[in-house]
Amino acid sequence: MILVRPRNPLNMGAAARAMANFGFQHLAVVAPYAPHWREARSAVGAPELLRDAKEAASLPEALVDCTLVVGTGTLTYRKAEQQVVQLPALAPLVERELARGGRIAMVFGPENHGLSRDDLSYCHVLVEIPTDVHQPSMNLGQAVAVCLYELSSRAFSALDELPVAQAAAEGSKSSTFRPPGPAVPSGALELLSGLIEETMSAAGYSPRSMQAANRHDLRLLVRRLGLNPADTRRVLGLFRRILWRLKRPSGRRDESE
Amino acid sequence: MILVRPRNPLNMGAAARAMANFGFQHLAVVAPYAPHWREARSAVGAPELLRDAKEAASLPEALVDCTLVVGTGTLTYRKAEQQVVQLPALAPLVERELARGGRIAMVFGPENHGLSRDDLSYCHVLVEIPTDVHQPSMNLGQAVAVCLYELSSRAFSALDELPVAQAAAEGSKSSTFRPPGPAVPSGALELLSGLIEETMSAAGYSPRSMQAANRHDLRLLVRRLGLNPADTRRVLGLFRRILWRLKRPSGRRDESE
Repeated sequence: MILVRPRNPLNMGAAARAMANFGFQHLAVVAPYAPHWREARSAVGAPELLRDAKEAASLPEALVDCTLVVGTGTLTYRKAEQQVVQLPALAPLVERELARGGRIAMVFGPENHGLSRDDLSYCHVLVEIPTDVHQPSMNLGQAVAVCLYELSSRAFSALDELPVAQAAAEGSKSSTFRPPGPAVPSGALELLSGLIEETMSAAGYSPRSMQAANRHDLRLLVRRLGLNPADTRRVLGLFRRILWRLKRPSGRRDESE
Repeated sequence: MILVRPRNPLNMGAAARAMANFGFQHLAVVAPYAPHWREARSAVGAPELLRDAKEAASLPEALVDCTLVVGTGTLTYRKAEQQVVQLPALAPLVERELARGGRIAMVFGPENHGLSRDDLSYCHVLVEIPTDVHQPSMNLGQAVAVCLYELSSRAFSALDELPVAQAAAEGSKSSTFRPPGPAVPSGALELLSGLIEETMSAAGYSPRSMQAANRHDLRLLVRRLGLNPADTRRVLGLFRRILWRLKRPSGRRDESE
């Protein structure tokens, strides 16, 4: 489970307690407000998993090994740019991902405004808790409890634990290919969209003024495609080749082709 | 929804917020710790339903109109004396009760030890949130959120709102028969067990030293029987008659029989 920029130490504690209640162990925290994070971690009775939580500077760093990234939030105030699933329908998706050896991350945003549009662009799916239209916005600790209850009570008939983000700082990006299953870790998708972006620039396809918007759309696109690892390697190879060609002095041909 | 002897104003606020999130409106609070209850009610941004909450001095008073009373808690530290349902299996029970015109109360205990054995004796069913054995005890606000999420997302395909305890102080006990449906309100069951208890004493069946224990067992028994209102009236009539006979001077017979 990943908390993005949490501020309230009580909420961090409550989120960790809900994880302990429902048998989840791996917590990563992205760019927490430092004094409150220290306070939450050192609180008397803080669950062990809070003290063991990984810290990451950015969301993609925390997600690097994850193959299914589930963002959380309400859509009352915005339009989704990816698949939206109501929480009661999430379990089958999670089961399928675990069955193919994937690693799942549930991502929760900060208390005030939830996940940003940029945060959400790293998510494959956006899960919505079906709340009342008059009071759609949930307290962070309660939202975490409800999501983990749903997953633990419905998605793990046969499984002992949800393997979630070990998060961050596992060395070079190539290490993100390690999970041998057919799912594609987030880090590999980032590598791919970075390469495509570079190619677009090299080809003069992406004017400087549009680069931020293009990067955002590309991130969503590579997650929508449902690539498997072999696909991903193939597409990466293709774009590496294209990029290499684009950067060669024009007019020369490679006779080996 | 009913909170029994809650202490922490933050938890009262969190419980009320979860109710608003999932579209529940009727809150009753039993014997709250007064200063904290005032604080929770007057908090900035407190949901309307918290300000409108009913106050009751005792749990049976708060339950008087309810036909299905669902206690919450963990069974890690005690043995249940009534039917136990895991939360994911509660929805069908609730649906059936609503379909026959019943009124349901979800009852949550105080933060430290949960519902007492005495509180639980007023419950038809005990619902357990399936939590991890190493950390079974949930925060009150999170437990409320999880239960109401489960009910709102699964029990109300066809229903707009859960009719819960309007609670307390609706005049004489006979008014508890008002719901015309086939379910039996808690107040009528209390009347019945009171009458049976009186009969047991009058018959010399219940020694003084055993009266508290007998009262407790009786309360559980009348809830287990699944009486309908006609049954209840019949049994009440029977015990009234027996009691009347027991209290008449012995040796005389009523010729009209």
